[in-house]
Amino acid sequence: MPRYRVTLAYDGTDLQGWQLQAPQPGTRTVQGEVEAALLRLVGGRRVVVAGAGRTDAGVHAEGQVASFDLPRELAPERLVRALNGLLPGDVRALEAGAVAAGFHARRDAWGKLYRYRLDTGPVQLPTRRRTAAHVHWALDLGVVEEAARLLLGRRDFAALASAGGSALTTVRTVRRLDVRRDDAGTLVFEVEADGFLRKMARSMVGGLVAAGRGAVSLEQLRSALEAGDRRAWPAPAEARGLTLVRVDYPPGALG
Amino acid sequence: MPRYRVTLAYDGTDLQGWQLQAPQPGTRTVQGEVEAALLRLVGGRRVVVAGAGRTDAGVHAEGQVASFDLPRELAPERLVRALNGLLPGDVRALEAGAVAAGFHARRDAWGKLYRYRLDTGPVQLPTRRRTAAHVHWALDLGVVEEAARLLLGRRDFAALASAGGSALTTVRTVRRLDVRRDDAGTLVFEVEADGFLRKMARSMVGGLVAAGRGAVSLEQLRSALEAGDRRAWPAPAEARGLTLVRVDYPPGALG
Repeated sequence: MPRYRVTLAYDGTDLQGWQLQAPQPGTRTVQGEVEAALLRLVGGRRVVVAGAGRTDAGVHAEGQVASFDLPRELAPERLVRALNGLLPGDVRALEAGAVAAGFHARRDAWGKLYRYRLDTGPVQLPTRRRTAAHVHWALDLGVVEEAARLLLGRRDFAALASAGGSALTTVRTVRRLDVRRDDAGTLVFEVEADGFLRKMARSMVGGLVAAGRGAVSLEQLRSALEAGDRRAWPAPAEARGLTLVRVDYPPGALG
Repeated sequence: MPRYRVTLAYDGTDLQGWQLQAPQPGTRTVQGEVEAALLRLVGGRRVVVAGAGRTDAGVHAEGQVASFDLPRELAPERLVRALNGLLPGDVRALEAGAVAAGFHARRDAWGKLYRYRLDTGPVQLPTRRRTAAHVHWALDLGVVEEAARLLLGRRDFAALASAGGSALTTVRTVRRLDVRRDDAGTLVFEVEADGFLRKMARSMVGGLVAAGRGAVSLEQLRSALEAGDRRAWPAPAEARGLTLVRVDYPPGALG
């Protein structure tokens, strides 16, 4: 059967994440919505969809990648149009392509880019509250940047992994971790790594924010990281600030 | 009774605009929500709230200004905190101040700044669909900018006014009308004027977009404007792209 990849974008606010182990009736997941659309597209045959990132409830995407087999060939542009005709408005297909039979959206990914938006100050603008988190405290950006440097490079991120992940190793390589303030005053974190453990991106931001407001010292972060001690690492930041921006594949992997 | 002004921000998506002439039960308006909060704050006495801009259903605000009298004095910081404890999450008080007894949020305004966000291209990101409009067409930005110049300065904007407005004259002064593309690729229109007729900001964008996609010529826009012909001017752009960013007052008016 021919295999396809689709780039997906979604507003995760009203979705229960990419997938649920045991979905309850009435809960909506991204995987469930895409599979329901494909089921109708191929006429009642279940299509199993693999996602590059298993985003949590409330997390958004601008460049999630999914792969699946279809029972027959379909022009990628037609696949995109058909999916957008069948998907709910908070999930959109942006682009698609045919891939080799062995391609897998998650296993073949070479890296991912996540963005985290955080508003600071007394009151958050209501138009931002679905896609940016909010803290009342002012943050020391110099300290935030110093804390970010602790997390760069190849290291064991066990301290930043929530229980329940399926990874065989907690070693990951963080290639980039930037923080800037955008025109509207929102703090924008961008982090690129070869892979992310469960809640790792949100734990990174949680740690940086705790350091930036002075709730934890850089030394405490460093020793929690080195000890792989989850209880000593600050809590993950809220889901609503996080967006999966891009998934990267090695040259040639997308066919 | 002491008079106050409050700066308000709201996500207009689930609101029926600033006010309704004859509100139905179950409909929410910004004025209604603020008056309900003040009713509870002052203990059951109706407080009538005047807004600087009568924004339509679906239009957002980051700097709407409202004025009203309270039966007793209240520190502005306490007023802000109390309102935010009583208002729904999609309406927030940002800042407040005591003003002179004659101050009126709309009549005293010297000007307003509106922003309009427009995504172009085949598919809009779901995270943007509440606060940006969307058209499939590519626009010629050079033509959009030429059309914008037709609207600058002091002139009769009868062609851009929807029926039902209460203005005595349709002459307004447009001080600035800029178009740029932001980092995310969204077109951002900003327009400042001494006042706006009903749906005037959205009619401006509707006209510029029609010109930018070639559906109407600059000459047609010019003659519709000069004739004050509403039927010859393109339809207003969607409400969801529009935000009331700021209301300006003459020096000293805010006390």
